[in-house]
Amino acid sequence: MISSPVYNFAAGPGIMPREVLLQAQQELLDWRQSGMSVMEMPFTGEEFQTIMRQARQDLRELLGVPADYRILFLQGGASAQFSLLPMNLLPPGATADYVDTGHWSRKAIEEGSRYARINVAASGADHNYRHVPAQARWQLDPGAGYCHITSNETADGLAYHWLPDTGNVPLVADMTSDFLSRPIAIERFGVIYAGAQKNIGPAGLTIVIIRDDLIQPARPETPSAFSYRVQAESEGRFNTPLTYAVYIAGLVFRWLKRQGGLGAIAERNRRKSDRLYDAIDGSDVYVCPQRAADRSRMNACFHLADASLTTEFLRQARQQGLLNLQGHPAVGGLRASLYNAMPDAGVEALIAFMQAFAARHT
Amino acid sequence: MISSPVYNFAAGPGIMPREVLLQAQQELLDWRQSGMSVMEMPFTGEEFQTIMRQARQDLRELLGVPADYRILFLQGGASAQFSLLPMNLLPPGATADYVDTGHWSRKAIEEGSRYARINVAASGADHNYRHVPAQARWQLDPGAGYCHITSNETADGLAYHWLPDTGNVPLVADMTSDFLSRPIAIERFGVIYAGAQKNIGPAGLTIVIIRDDLIQPARPETPSAFSYRVQAESEGRFNTPLTYAVYIAGLVFRWLKRQGGLGAIAERNRRKSDRLYDAIDGSDVYVCPQRAADRSRMNACFHLADASLTTEFLRQARQQGLLNLQGHPAVGGLRASLYNAMPDAGVEALIAFMQAFAARHT
Repeated sequence: MISSPVYNFAAGPGIMPREVLLQAQQELLDWRQSGMSVMEMPFTGEEFQTIMRQARQDLRELLGVPADYRILFLQGGASAQFSLLPMNLLPPGATADYVDTGHWSRKAIEEGSRYARINVAASGADHNYRHVPAQARWQLDPGAGYCHITSNETADGLAYHWLPDTGNVPLVADMTSDFLSRPIAIERFGVIYAGAQKNIGPAGLTIVIIRDDLIQPARPETPSAFSYRVQAESEGRFNTPLTYAVYIAGLVFRWLKRQGGLGAIAERNRRKSDRLYDAIDGSDVYVCPQRAADRSRMNACFHLADASLTTEFLRQARQQGLLNLQGHPAVGGLRASLYNAMPDAGVEALIAFMQAFAARHT
Repeated sequence: MISSPVYNFAAGPGIMPREVLLQAQQELLDWRQSGMSVMEMPFTGEEFQTIMRQARQDLRELLGVPADYRILFLQGGASAQFSLLPMNLLPPGATADYVDTGHWSRKAIEEGSRYARINVAASGADHNYRHVPAQARWQLDPGAGYCHITSNETADGLAYHWLPDTGNVPLVADMTSDFLSRPIAIERFGVIYAGAQKNIGPAGLTIVIIRDDLIQPARPETPSAFSYRVQAESEGRFNTPLTYAVYIAGLVFRWLKRQGGLGAIAERNRRKSDRLYDAIDGSDVYVCPQRAADRSRMNACFHLADASLTTEFLRQARQQGLLNLQGHPAVGGLRASLYNAMPDAGVEALIAFMQAFAARHT
């Protein structure tokens, strides 16, 4: 039996805004007296096209996407983009720079290596990903087709709190886990991509924001459904999009606007994560090894000084309604994901539990 | 203002079972006292793994999938499979047979041609897709890697009501629009694939059923997330699946079992479509050009003898709550999709309207 209220600290799919779920519930059988659930709508019909147009426009406003960037609603998740990005951007034989800041960078590099010569411009592997490598140490290739970063490392708890300068080489970011958590200077990027299941909506939906001049014919072997150019030129009508996920994402964008936009949400995210990191750093029972300046505001990765207590910590937390606090399997330990939808009360409940647990076990 | 009840005849995304939507609505904020919406569940967690396991098992039972076939829950829709199928099944330079029975066959051929030498074994183009070419006229290539059919043509209103014999060449079917509408002799196929947005669930989810011996390493350029082998070996854990769509599909599978399974639903589908085709054939106002033996039971494609009345027909139908009866844009005319979830009452309401419209306009 789990006590109520429940707070879901999963790294994604993870917590969604309650207001969004309530609205989705209310509209589930009949969207605005259309007589249809959004799941039942033909995607070329007026109703769904209205939903998709509104979602794209709200996202453009939220992020301040410049006019010379396209927003694509794709499918397959960020793991598919690890392949589709070089297939769409790089001719065969090209080189790309990748910066390795942890688990998800390595996945992107591994998959990208199947399509291009990858130059790992910098890596945090030698210090076990305790901090983001300073740009002064990056060995960039001036001939690279792009430079790829992972703006937030979900498994390792690191994030960029500064913007790299890659000169004329387009900067490309996997923003899956911090997209919409703070304002972004879009114009500093060539491509931004993000899987939806953190701060956007249901898993599978994949957002690609790309500068017009980078939309080129993809490699010949690229499935047309995954060609940025085909999708951009068809305005998402090449094949049936993830209609229901686009709808939910649209509700999330509206919710974000009601919260005051990305500036306001960033401030709240900063406050929530500061509270948690302060509690961790103020205790001898919990350890966060990441350098303070590079810590993720989305995924606080930490562990118990006595790792043998981890299972007991998770068991008791679950009993208290604090769910999914285990670390990524590749890393272990604990992880509290504090996405946009996590209320302050959830963070306070976690901290109270951590302090009580610490008191019981020291 | 649309009158109630509303019947949605869209070709997909289309009508879903009301009981499924009601259950989804009820569980939307909290799945079985887990404290989480299914959209919020980590996909490797016990809750979602239970949902996915159950869905796969129910589908296996419904279809009678033999033990030497795998069921994959993929992403991207059938249009993506037009590319991913040859990428996964054919080495470079291979040949494949395709039978052309209409709009969606042609799409599959067009995309498949980018990966293989395609032999169009038979085509209905010369008679404007009035019937499915008899197998006696197929020019099969004994060296083909597979023979591809489209078991139901959504835009043209044709379906196979017999099973081709392709000898040792694996038979592959795009079953997007009639999957789960009737029993299938799975063992006669090498691969079956289907996008979800007709009889399964939300758009994007893509089901691939493949015989074990056909699961080979994909071509080197295939994104790992779309490799049948990678997905089969990881049991769907390679990347985050379409969690919410898998859940809805699972509810649909349960609903189908409660309807008595595929034999019972096929009988109902036969009855519904017979009623509609009888009404069309019994009138001078409506014309269905497809040969009776090859007509689709999912998508009745017909037109008005006086095509100038089409817009007025659609307008009046909509007023009566009979939605989305326009034909596919590439074909024109009218189309009534009668998926599993369309109740008898919807078909009766459509026929009553058609008869009244005919009486008013002759």
